[in-house]
Amino acid sequence: MKKIHFKIFPKIPLLEGIDIICGKANIKSTTRLDIGVIIFHDLANVAYVTTKSKTFAANIKWLKENKKIFKTKILMVNSGNANAYTGEEGFINLKTILSFLSSKFNCNKKEIIISSTGVIGEQLPMKKIMKTLQKLTGKTSEKYKMSWDGFAKSIMTTDTFPKAIYKTTKIGNKSVKLIGIAKGSGMIAPDMATMLGYIFTDADFTPRILKELLIQINEKSFNSITVDSDMSTNDMVCFFSTRKVLNSVSSVNDKSIETFKKDLQWLAIELAKKIIYDGEGATKLIEVYVCGSKNYLDAKNVALSIANSLLVKTAIAGEDANWGRIIMAIGKSKVKLDQSKISLKLGKNIIINKGRLKKKYNEKIISKYLKKNEILIEVNLNNGKNSSRVWTCDLTKKYIEINAHYRS
Amino acid sequence: MKKIHFKIFPKIPLLEGIDIICGKANIKSTTRLDIGVIIFHDLANVAYVTTKSKTFAANIKWLKENKKIFKTKILMVNSGNANAYTGEEGFINLKTILSFLSSKFNCNKKEIIISSTGVIGEQLPMKKIMKTLQKLTGKTSEKYKMSWDGFAKSIMTTDTFPKAIYKTTKIGNKSVKLIGIAKGSGMIAPDMATMLGYIFTDADFTPRILKELLIQINEKSFNSITVDSDMSTNDMVCFFSTRKVLNSVSSVNDKSIETFKKDLQWLAIELAKKIIYDGEGATKLIEVYVCGSKNYLDAKNVALSIANSLLVKTAIAGEDANWGRIIMAIGKSKVKLDQSKISLKLGKNIIINKGRLKKKYNEKIISKYLKKNEILIEVNLNNGKNSSRVWTCDLTKKYIEINAHYRS
Repeated sequence: MKKIHFKIFPKIPLLEGIDIICGKANIKSTTRLDIGVIIFHDLANVAYVTTKSKTFAANIKWLKENKKIFKTKILMVNSGNANAYTGEEGFINLKTILSFLSSKFNCNKKEIIISSTGVIGEQLPMKKIMKTLQKLTGKTSEKYKMSWDGFAKSIMTTDTFPKAIYKTTKIGNKSVKLIGIAKGSGMIAPDMATMLGYIFTDADFTPRILKELLIQINEKSFNSITVDSDMSTNDMVCFFSTRKVLNSVSSVNDKSIETFKKDLQWLAIELAKKIIYDGEGATKLIEVYVCGSKNYLDAKNVALSIANSLLVKTAIAGEDANWGRIIMAIGKSKVKLDQSKISLKLGKNIIINKGRLKKKYNEKIISKYLKKNEILIEVNLNNGKNSSRVWTCDLTKKYIEINAHYRS
Repeated sequence: MKKIHFKIFPKIPLLEGIDIICGKANIKSTTRLDIGVIIFHDLANVAYVTTKSKTFAANIKWLKENKKIFKTKILMVNSGNANAYTGEEGFINLKTILSFLSSKFNCNKKEIIISSTGVIGEQLPMKKIMKTLQKLTGKTSEKYKMSWDGFAKSIMTTDTFPKAIYKTTKIGNKSVKLIGIAKGSGMIAPDMATMLGYIFTDADFTPRILKELLIQINEKSFNSITVDSDMSTNDMVCFFSTRKVLNSVSSVNDKSIETFKKDLQWLAIELAKKIIYDGEGATKLIEVYVCGSKNYLDAKNVALSIANSLLVKTAIAGEDANWGRIIMAIGKSKVKLDQSKISLKLGKNIIINKGRLKKKYNEKIISKYLKKNEILIEVNLNNGKNSSRVWTCDLTKKYIEINAHYRS
């Protein structure tokens, strides 16, 4: 894609009361950072959502078994190995890391969150990891990076650039910070990549409010993107509140956080779009907006049916104005609809109006539009008042190349 | 794929009481047959199943509106244009063809079945079609082909070879014929291809028995294949009985049709596999067998989750023994399962046994196995007694090439 604004890594200040350590444990590569640790010296409140996969990784198992994780001293992420489908040995390895960190940082194991991303089915290289953790947390710590940029890089797998968004916003008249870091190039990657997202704020929210906010914004951001419809064993989005800027918000409906919520949603969407922008082999960012549905889920189902259609994605890769494929993709969704009511636009260009091809339909205009880097597909089912917006990318030969031959 | 047995077109005798006419109406191409007509002089009994798409084509609309179609005088298929998303005009065009054929062959419109396949959203070139139909059905008929081979060719779009299976079987001690013709290269094609299947027998079955047989065999054949999970607006499978060999079968459970049913199922599966073999850009036929599930639908869901996973399909294209992707695809299905019970084999090679990687797991053996043209993925959920078998193909750069640029 020509537009490079997605690739920009913003300047992000360190938050009060946290430290960032990153290191190389040579898990998959000898040249890249692969361990990132964030220390919340005064404990952060936390909420998280994890993958719905039935073959979830060891770290997800830990979170599922310990539901009362509300405070965090340490966030540790390793890339290069997912610690998924590694059975009891994988779970014991996870607990070894938890024990080490809890002892080192004098906290409860339940105050530690671990994320992993990488190849499935291989045991963690524990010697390398423990040696590196000891170095990183030792007195003469080998601190390669002490920045958000380093942390964002240490969690990358096939990502081609580190992903972050920074925004200052307001709660009442107090200025608070919002920092988002993510990794993922489409649920898919050389290392069977995962979608990981971390949002940090210095505002003061209870774990319950964090959870409610996270669920709201996650649905319309990280849960509304798709590269190839494959789902990772390790997906995770966490929301941390360092509680340094005090406020008296007692509910997600508190009016003082209207702006905060809006900015939080914006940040999550922009972060999610960076993942799509980095989708393997992608040349175009595709936004699918479906409106006029009976309910939100209907709109989202139709939107995902379009966004996951290989025929739609290859047509857009080829800049081919084959709108019949979009109609096909709408039709194969399981949503009840009346095909004679459908309206379809590409960008501002009307193609179908309530089931009828526009009289002056001109394929040349559509073909020209498809040469853009960002494509908007807009569908109105004319059947209600709900809508959904999802993002995907086109499907190119490069995707196949990356995923067919990554280990050779 | 190296194996060419899928490409062989068998010698098929004409059935008593039928005629085949094929012609060129230049719908999309000037060099290819694009109209195929089969005349059942003494009316055939018929049953059919059609696409579940909500944006179904005009011919599907006709079948939905006229549910009491049990007898057929004429089957007409046109390729090159799907007559889908063509609104009222498309439906009127369909009825014009029906009127012409019913008048020409002195039958009721409800004794005519029309199938279409091709591009979506364009009106049928009626002048060309009507002129050709007049020629073909006229006294000095321009009959390009009078064979099953011609019919199979006339219904092709991006198919690279015509697809048919022929088998003689038995009902009691009477020999009967089974003929299957199909088209499709994966729900997808330059012309937004459709999966069309036609099975003919000279045995005597009532429409009700035909329907029950068709539903049974369709589920485990045409409904168990996937190239890219995209679904056509025009899919259709029909089963015709010309009633020339009399029998007294009164129920699908009649013991005298045990062999017939077995052969019918085999024929439908082989025909469906030919479509997968012709999947765009495919180099490997992949069979996914899932057993040990609580019920059939669970097994099928897991099988389709694997068969539709881009990561699995690209790994197999690259002959990469990345079995973690299969575990990922099992995990993302919506079936309740226990990951510690899963067993996985590639061909005869055990990889996972009840959640544990085989001790002597040797990636080289798996890599060698993946060089074959036909790959079997076998998953045992160890959670019940049901199973499902689906077929798909690998995903290669060629697929992208065909579907990104077909109209340029």
